[in-house]
Amino acid sequence: MKRQAGPEIERLIQLLAKLPGLGPRSARRAVLHLVKNREKLLAPLATAMEEAHARARTCSVCGNVDTLDPCTICSDPRRDRSMLCVVEEVGDLWALERAGAWTGLYQVLGGTLSALGGVRPEDLEIGKLVSRCAETGVKEVVLATNATVEGQTTAHYITDKLKSLGLSTSRLAHGVPVGGELDYLDEGTLTQAMRARRPF
Amino acid sequence: MKRQAGPEIERLIQLLAKLPGLGPRSARRAVLHLVKNREKLLAPLATAMEEAHARARTCSVCGNVDTLDPCTICSDPRRDRSMLCVVEEVGDLWALERAGAWTGLYQVLGGTLSALGGVRPEDLEIGKLVSRCAETGVKEVVLATNATVEGQTTAHYITDKLKSLGLSTSRLAHGVPVGGELDYLDEGTLTQAMRARRPF
Repeated sequence: MKRQAGPEIERLIQLLAKLPGLGPRSARRAVLHLVKNREKLLAPLATAMEEAHARARTCSVCGNVDTLDPCTICSDPRRDRSMLCVVEEVGDLWALERAGAWTGLYQVLGGTLSALGGVRPEDLEIGKLVSRCAETGVKEVVLATNATVEGQTTAHYITDKLKSLGLSTSRLAHGVPVGGELDYLDEGTLTQAMRARRPF
Repeated sequence: MKRQAGPEIERLIQLLAKLPGLGPRSARRAVLHLVKNREKLLAPLATAMEEAHARARTCSVCGNVDTLDPCTICSDPRRDRSMLCVVEEVGDLWALERAGAWTGLYQVLGGTLSALGGVRPEDLEIGKLVSRCAETGVKEVVLATNATVEGQTTAHYITDKLKSLGLSTSRLAHGVPVGGELDYLDEGTLTQAMRARRPF
């Protein structure tokens, strides 16, 4: 392929194309948009990336990504330290926070157990989770792993581990998504929603 | 919405969400990916953006975006200076270059005429195009504006302008896209393709 622009611009296109959700074509379009809005968008974005690079770090307590360590959540005195929510990835933690659905602390696992993928318990932050539960007076653990086979396997494994500490775990409810139409839902979800029906 | 991460990270998400093809959700996912790959992706991207900001400029001859002015194409001695291709936007120029479809020079208009949008001939680089044609010995002008109503209106307007210089213009052929299936094509394209049929 011929080069249409200088090497600096081509390099920017190549790097942007590595972002999830962008490919070579959309990266090219994004770079054109950036170059057209040099002062209003490209310059601030360059600065923001530099600052994020300089300041972003992984929280040494829970695994969240923040510019503080311990992160904003772990160092918030209003958070309930006896409640721990276990998530697979930082994105899941952010999603729960966006929903305002949890007032306790978190533990990011960093993935799920996977026999095929070769992910063993020691590859995840399960050891850390167990020692946090043992040492810091955690009373309730919610396993908010994804509703996939791997997510549920991981949740079962962790439940077994925590039983020896005398801790019981819970998991997120299955059911009809808010605003969801029954006609478009899979049978598994409908069966679970029916089984867990509640008095009106 | 609550803040899940430090202000630097939130700012990066907000800025990335302004790129075409990205929204708040995908920008969040992209930033997580960036922060996870701090050294391999975030740092190089910050540098690339800074360099692009420092060096990218609009070619004063044709309107292309490059790190050189005049741009790589305008300053290439192998390019045929008697042939000029008129495009709406820089992205169209890049697309033609990717295809290797043109060996002459370009003129970027910066848009199309639009009565509804309030775009008049003086808002586009039509004056520059006419003076380039008059002064630099251009012999052939291809109007590669989009096959939209606005694009074709603009092409007609330019053809009229260039007639007074004794220059004739041509436009891109309409027809069946290479690899295209007739069943999925609109009637307009099929009619044009049939009218412009060529001996086998």
